Amino acid sequence: MCGTCGCDEQVEVITLEQKVLARNDEIAAANRDRLAAGGVLAVNLMSSPGSGKTTLLERTIRDLGPRRLAVVEGDQQTPLDAERIRRTGCPVVQINTGAGCHLDAAMLGSALDRLAPPRGGVLFVENVGNLICPSLFDLGERDRVVILSVTEGADKPLKYPHVFAVAGLVLINKVDLLPYVDFDVAHCRRHVAAVNPGAQVVEVSATRGDNLDAWYAWLDQLRAASGRRDHTS
Amino acid sequence: MCGTCGCDEQVEVITLEQKVLARNDEIAAANRDRLAAGGVLAVNLMSSPGSGKTTLLERTIRDLGPRRLAVVEGDQQTPLDAERIRRTGCPVVQINTGAGCHLDAAMLGSALDRLAPPRGGVLFVENVGNLICPSLFDLGERDRVVILSVTEGADKPLKYPHVFAVAGLVLINKVDLLPYVDFDVAHCRRHVAAVNPGAQVVEVSATRGDNLDAWYAWLDQLRAASGRRDHTS
Repeated sequence: MCGTCGCDEQVEVITLEQKVLARNDEIAAANRDRLAAGGVLAVNLMSSPGSGKTTLLERTIRDLGPRRLAVVEGDQQTPLDAERIRRTGCPVVQINTGAGCHLDAAMLGSALDRLAPPRGGVLFVENVGNLICPSLFDLGERDRVVILSVTEGADKPLKYPHVFAVAGLVLINKVDLLPYVDFDVAHCRRHVAAVNPGAQVVEVSATRGDNLDAWYAWLDQLRAASGRRDHTS
Repeated sequence: MCGTCGCDEQVEVITLEQKVLARNDEIAAANRDRLAAGGVLAVNLMSSPGSGKTTLLERTIRDLGPRRLAVVEGDQQTPLDAERIRRTGCPVVQINTGAGCHLDAAMLGSALDRLAPPRGGVLFVENVGNLICPSLFDLGERDRVVILSVTEGADKPLKYPHVFAVAGLVLINKVDLLPYVDFDVAHCRRHVAAVNPGAQVVEVSATRGDNLDAWYAWLDQLRAASGRRDHTS
């Protein structure tokens, strides 16, 4: 989050950041209530630019069918990703953040006004490609997934720990490229465990389809756990 | 830059951002004077996480020799990149931004206090891996380079236009992986030209060494132009 300048405004910046985050958390709580009331499981997908989030969603929609899914696409500019999702037949809303570096809860709230995911369905929120700022902003989602492609290097969980620390699942994507890059999967798994011992880690290839059943099983488990929680609350 | 929340604090956020950026620009101007007085060419390298910035620097130092080079490494956490540069024999300072998503001029100023690049040398500033926020913060550099790896996709200049718009040079890196990914170099070049007609674009492979002479020639041209400018100012 911007505001680490060491300049005279630093205290003012921190105070304002706290206000912005507190306001965001209020809206996120409202989104969470609204999603629970509608029986919708929302998952926030975060990653670097180009890690394969949209390709993963295209494949997921093709495999699971578009009927019970919906997507919110976050990008600085262009409707390119929403157009890709729309071609799968899945309902989608594009949010362009302009200069902004992340989605926030108000943006998701306004997307929910335009998109009505079906009861029992899954709402995928593809955040802006950025391994830093999105981790600070609760959107009201049920859980967070970080996608890391093997072309980015196994050291990323240590270098960008905050986003990995808040994820329930880490997908190591593009394993079809493993023969051509210097990426040690075991090292990467250890680095994820070091910053987030509770995170599950699954290796996949969204383009080739490797191991996507494990991703779908994780979604099923999350849906089952959400159902139990909503039932007992 | 964080602060596009559409919430009640928006005006307050924008005002404070303007103050932070104005203060940053003052410090950047001081850095620029200091670098010019020392006869040092500073280049700000910006990219997504894992695009190959550190590998490019390791190779550049190996090819050009460490004697007239220096490096400032920006990362959220860890001294990993500085350790890699140190092994090449090149002077290096690591800046860890913590929660911060970019370097700013004050951080570079403090790094310059600890690092004295030689007259006629080049200072490479490897920014935090982030295609968004670093573009807003002038550090006092002579020019900016964006590194985009072919694994990230050719659409990135359109989706993250601000960082491409401020770059003098775009390096399309990891061309050794072109046979294994869906990346159209001609499309990418057109997208860069659409957001920044003046940017040069060079295709390279930092790991395999392809076409790095064009990168070194760009640095030489920049040094020559800076020399002329300093002479006539």
